[in-house]
Amino acid sequence: MGGVRRQLEVAVKLASLKGGRDGRLVVVSANLAHCVVAGDIAPTLQAALDDWASTAPRLARLAAQLDAGAANGSQPFDPRACAAPLPRAHHWADGSAYVNHVELVRRARGAELPPTFWTDPLMYQGGSDDFLGPTDDAPFASEDQGIDLEAEIAVIVDDVPMRCTAEAAAGHIRLLLLVNDWSLRNLIPGELAKGFGFYQSKPATAFSPVAVTPDELGDAWRDGKLHRPLVSHVNGAAFGAPDAGVDMTFSFPQLVAHAARTRRLGAGAIIGSGTVSNRDRSRGSSCLAEKRTLELLGSGAPSTPFLRFGDRVRIEMFDAAGRSIFGAIDQRVVAAA
Amino acid sequence: MGGVRRQLEVAVKLASLKGGRDGRLVVVSANLAHCVVAGDIAPTLQAALDDWASTAPRLARLAAQLDAGAANGSQPFDPRACAAPLPRAHHWADGSAYVNHVELVRRARGAELPPTFWTDPLMYQGGSDDFLGPTDDAPFASEDQGIDLEAEIAVIVDDVPMRCTAEAAAGHIRLLLLVNDWSLRNLIPGELAKGFGFYQSKPATAFSPVAVTPDELGDAWRDGKLHRPLVSHVNGAAFGAPDAGVDMTFSFPQLVAHAARTRRLGAGAIIGSGTVSNRDRSRGSSCLAEKRTLELLGSGAPSTPFLRFGDRVRIEMFDAAGRSIFGAIDQRVVAAA
Repeated sequence: MGGVRRQLEVAVKLASLKGGRDGRLVVVSANLAHCVVAGDIAPTLQAALDDWASTAPRLARLAAQLDAGAANGSQPFDPRACAAPLPRAHHWADGSAYVNHVELVRRARGAELPPTFWTDPLMYQGGSDDFLGPTDDAPFASEDQGIDLEAEIAVIVDDVPMRCTAEAAAGHIRLLLLVNDWSLRNLIPGELAKGFGFYQSKPATAFSPVAVTPDELGDAWRDGKLHRPLVSHVNGAAFGAPDAGVDMTFSFPQLVAHAARTRRLGAGAIIGSGTVSNRDRSRGSSCLAEKRTLELLGSGAPSTPFLRFGDRVRIEMFDAAGRSIFGAIDQRVVAAA
Repeated sequence: MGGVRRQLEVAVKLASLKGGRDGRLVVVSANLAHCVVAGDIAPTLQAALDDWASTAPRLARLAAQLDAGAANGSQPFDPRACAAPLPRAHHWADGSAYVNHVELVRRARGAELPPTFWTDPLMYQGGSDDFLGPTDDAPFASEDQGIDLEAEIAVIVDDVPMRCTAEAAAGHIRLLLLVNDWSLRNLIPGELAKGFGFYQSKPATAFSPVAVTPDELGDAWRDGKLHRPLVSHVNGAAFGAPDAGVDMTFSFPQLVAHAARTRRLGAGAIIGSGTVSNRDRSRGSSCLAEKRTLELLGSGAPSTPFLRFGDRVRIEMFDAAGRSIFGAIDQRVVAAA
């Protein structure tokens, strides 16, 4: 991870500078200090993914040049200038792969977990036309909606055929990134009671500044899981650091195979893990709903409020040497204009 | 509708010829006989929608030239050469605006309709990375999945701000088109029981060859509804022709406002009506599930089977003079490769 990139791998970090609806693709140095516009290879990340077999090796070569200080047009990398790596996508589906989290939330309301939840992934389809950049303000109509973070990992795939197996799906995972799947908790019960799943309760989703190839992650990426703690802070205070590789019931290849069971997935489809959660509760949580549930089970009532306007949420992941892998999602909750 | 287009309106029919992931935008004549590539104005329909204020009047001028036989490069229009108008989109959400249909289906299984269903739209988010063209084969893994059509209308919007009112939403509706929201009935009960809504049960969706501006529809487009029968055939036999303007509980502007309650919608977002259904059952149905429900309520058991491989589904809408407005969705059900 980081350091010198090996020639035979496709090790690259990518970001999209704000500008236009689909951003401007840049290759980012392993240490997140510099970037270089990749327009000669592909103008946007979507365009790169549309033709990944051709663009990926060229992007990796540019990354190696950038890390060696030999890339023309290198500039300082500023996450505040970034849109989401895919500022808009054609498919965003989020799993709920940390089933212990689902079990916990159900227990709190006295509902049993159907045994199939351990074998058949939960997944919902999200809106993908309006993603938030990593440092964009997150706008909401009212604090009464129960504003909550959900710190997650996601993968971006290339074209996946219908009925792809999990084994084959692993080879379609081209990029990983971090997600804040903003959720409006007080809209969820009414919406789920209607039977059609989440819609208004899942507003615009935010992503990390940088998306990275699996090869960039070294041995932290194995068994189709990302084995590093996902670190969340709320208003500067440590909130959670559960290991994303622990207690993940369904691997990313299994989630991708689930998504492709009855349809093809197009290049650039994003599949998320759901809220990262460890059974070891000392690791903290990745959403307020889980923390409130633990409080409810412990003392009979939740004591941590949902987010208020002005609150800040930061989500980041570090490699074994303590270097940020994806850059930070660092957003402020604001009142919608 | 049809005939000579008025200069001050944006009256235009648009299609996307297959080619590339986003197709090649063409303007189509009012009578669907001819088309002309619109590449000088916008290469793709998504690009046209991204800059609609600028592209729409130019597309309308080209349409007027085409209808007058004065467009350079005019060619015969062949729906079989068409992808969906947006071969992939960034947002596809489908309402369930014909609430009498929902009520009927619920009655059949002894469930009451919550009174809020008449005031708060049902809406689910669909996959938008892999739409089917109007005459593409529709591939499914197994006949046992309960393959069903859902004939619907949809609108395509430009940028819609968060918390847009229904009144303001009307002005964001830029195009209308027909939909076959393919559904896998036997996957729905298990999926809805999990609480996260449809996912695998709603595979790739098909659209009509042509999308048209509201101005192209004359007085058939009023009150935010499309007042024409939606004509479906299964294997050449008339299946249904309910009027899409009748018994539509929520207008398209209301559906768009619902979709935008907690988020912005990006240009090119598609919002569907749900299965068109009239209380007057002599008009037939727009999905087999409704027909089977009526059979169940009538004789105690459904007698019409779901679709089999080799079956054909045709969905079309005609103007008052009997001319096809959108061209036909005409697909064959096939076994997935």
